[in-house]
Amino acid sequence: MFSKKSTTNYFSILIHLLKWTLIAFPVAALVGSVVALFLWLLDVVTNFRFTHGWLLYLLPLAGLLIWWLYKTAGKNAESGNNMILDEIHQPGGGIPLRMAPLVLITTIITHLFGGSAGREGTAVQIGGSLSSLIGKRLKLSTDETKLLLMMGVAAGFGAVFGTPLTGAIFALEVVYIGRMNYKALLPCLIASFLADMICSMWHIHHTQYHIQIVESLKSSTSIFHFDLLLIGEVIIGGALFGITSLLFSEFTHTVKSYSKEWIKVPWLIPVIGGGIVILLAFLLGTNDYLGLGVSNPDPNAVSILNCFKAGGADTWSWLWKLIFTGITLGMGFKGGEVTPLFFIGAALGNTLGTLCGAPVDLMAGLGFIAVFAGATNTPIACTLMGIELFGGEYALYYAIACFTAYYFSGHTGIYTAQRVINKKG
Amino acid sequence: MFSKKSTTNYFSILIHLLKWTLIAFPVAALVGSVVALFLWLLDVVTNFRFTHGWLLYLLPLAGLLIWWLYKTAGKNAESGNNMILDEIHQPGGGIPLRMAPLVLITTIITHLFGGSAGREGTAVQIGGSLSSLIGKRLKLSTDETKLLLMMGVAAGFGAVFGTPLTGAIFALEVVYIGRMNYKALLPCLIASFLADMICSMWHIHHTQYHIQIVESLKSSTSIFHFDLLLIGEVIIGGALFGITSLLFSEFTHTVKSYSKEWIKVPWLIPVIGGGIVILLAFLLGTNDYLGLGVSNPDPNAVSILNCFKAGGADTWSWLWKLIFTGITLGMGFKGGEVTPLFFIGAALGNTLGTLCGAPVDLMAGLGFIAVFAGATNTPIACTLMGIELFGGEYALYYAIACFTAYYFSGHTGIYTAQRVINKKG
Repeated sequence: MFSKKSTTNYFSILIHLLKWTLIAFPVAALVGSVVALFLWLLDVVTNFRFTHGWLLYLLPLAGLLIWWLYKTAGKNAESGNNMILDEIHQPGGGIPLRMAPLVLITTIITHLFGGSAGREGTAVQIGGSLSSLIGKRLKLSTDETKLLLMMGVAAGFGAVFGTPLTGAIFALEVVYIGRMNYKALLPCLIASFLADMICSMWHIHHTQYHIQIVESLKSSTSIFHFDLLLIGEVIIGGALFGITSLLFSEFTHTVKSYSKEWIKVPWLIPVIGGGIVILLAFLLGTNDYLGLGVSNPDPNAVSILNCFKAGGADTWSWLWKLIFTGITLGMGFKGGEVTPLFFIGAALGNTLGTLCGAPVDLMAGLGFIAVFAGATNTPIACTLMGIELFGGEYALYYAIACFTAYYFSGHTGIYTAQRVINKKG
Repeated sequence: MFSKKSTTNYFSILIHLLKWTLIAFPVAALVGSVVALFLWLLDVVTNFRFTHGWLLYLLPLAGLLIWWLYKTAGKNAESGNNMILDEIHQPGGGIPLRMAPLVLITTIITHLFGGSAGREGTAVQIGGSLSSLIGKRLKLSTDETKLLLMMGVAAGFGAVFGTPLTGAIFALEVVYIGRMNYKALLPCLIASFLADMICSMWHIHHTQYHIQIVESLKSSTSIFHFDLLLIGEVIIGGALFGITSLLFSEFTHTVKSYSKEWIKVPWLIPVIGGGIVILLAFLLGTNDYLGLGVSNPDPNAVSILNCFKAGGADTWSWLWKLIFTGITLGMGFKGGEVTPLFFIGAALGNTLGTLCGAPVDLMAGLGFIAVFAGATNTPIACTLMGIELFGGEYALYYAIACFTAYYFSGHTGIYTAQRVINKKG
């Protein structure tokens, strides 16, 4: 019944699986533990900043320190996430090990002094850098190195957000625009799952978000089992979330290129960037747009968690967070873009929900995942993230919002090293 | 901020979206309505067979009738799903319109007389054939025709199972082994969503499945938020589900090729096939493995629904359903493979759950999606199907089972026209 060729073929699949499962253990142990350390530090410095508001005034100095750290110890490590994508496309010099501690320390500095940034970039770089270290020890081939780096990305992403399935699909999806590669499907899931598990063994807990739409929605007496008006709002929301991703990417890239062009002394860029952030916070009279923004000790502050409640964000909160983050990351501070993207999306969702009378928590959740989907061109990972974070009940809405945002964000994104394989139109 | 080129580029994406959204409406209306008719007829004939057991004895004659219908009216329509995949790879002669009524009528005949078959193949062929008809009117280019056919497949699949998200991802995933193409992402989701909506406007309801694991599992006091023993069982289950997919594909292909080799008179093949099914039912003393198998008026019968309950299937139920279906479909009867694959998987999951003390409903649900994932090489669509049918709570388990089954099913599958783009190992 089975030919010899297909049997040989079959065993090579099993050996491939076994080998990568074994490699996944050290990758996950290392990445999961360092990410746990990172998350713990992040929590410590964020809470410290909340009680020591004056730290913000040192942000320009912090920027100078970050610049100096990368200048003296960074070498080629500054290109960050894009270097990891480039290495997956075409393994070359490898990811320098110094990338992991450097990005960890500089992200912590950014957050301690109130820069508006995230954490996924840091986690992905920790994952890439540490898995590359393991790869060098194992003397892997070019193809094997690609796979290993994808596992590192999956492990970092899965652990930092506590979403293992999303981490795996993100790693497969982020490399190319318009295609998902299955070669690393199970190895990435194993790495991401184990890294998340190890991260929780270190007693790291992730924020819980809740979407609890009024029951009347579900028991609708409509002949459809969908609410057509809501679907329409989700589509329009998806389009706006996609346009917002585009705006974010373009704004950050523009800030980066203009500050290089206009400010000729490199170390002045983060100093001025820090100054602008202080000025903006002063003009707006609020610190809500500093730091990670997931939660806030002030119950009336705008934070991601509060965006899920009616009245939890102002009409333009999303735009302010976009500007704060674009300046922070475009002018030399470190950290990820994703948590700010969550913030921008959830705040915009809150505004849209309020304006069109749609459920605010659902719209905030959709913005949370869809702005991210548009900015990173990973619509399926983000649909799964919605399911992992908010539950599967609204999976179809997640997909509609993320897929729509994916189209409306155009062919750019926050990772310039992504390659366009299938044009969107 | 935006260059002229990227603006032009952006508008071409929006025009692409608008165009395909408009095309999705007639595709969905047509496919959704015909699938509704098909599901209604299927329900009528299945209930009729339950009350008229003697119909089984006419199965060989029914086989002869199906052979004659394809012989006189079929021309090239017999290659079915594989022809649709071939046309997506390389649009050529187009899908003949006759495929839709022919496969609908012959599937209904198969089910009326108790052949063990499914319905997704039929729905996908209805989708492909009807969308191809629309494509000819619109005079589409080669690339546009590919996209249209994928929309047809998505619409057919989404409507027949009531799972629009799965339908869309299935259409993107099924074409190649090891790659997902995003070109048609949103058009497929729109088509699948609308077709499902139109199907429910015709008052077609889909079977509800439930997984309700004992609460103790969730409130586990373990330091992990996962149950490691259960994860181990899910991985082993996934491997066995994958091997079962492989067995199913190989058995069906083998039955097909041997019956062509051994039975020189073509019309005798379905006649003998029908005879074997009757003989097997007689020897086993049960009609449980005939027809679709979703539910059964006898509360003690083995059916997909009962597989979710402890004691709802016998140890070898999965193997019997595999043999019944392989003979039915391998010897000239019509219908899909997917519902029987659900049955085989759910029954095997029931057996495994009983043997290792794992929750029977969860294991049945995992088998349901994972055997299908292995046989069609669509692990992500099947993970999403788990979420759409059983809820998102166990999404990670669905992914582990489906991804593992994907590797363990090797490079074959029920669709021989799939092309291997990325080897699994």
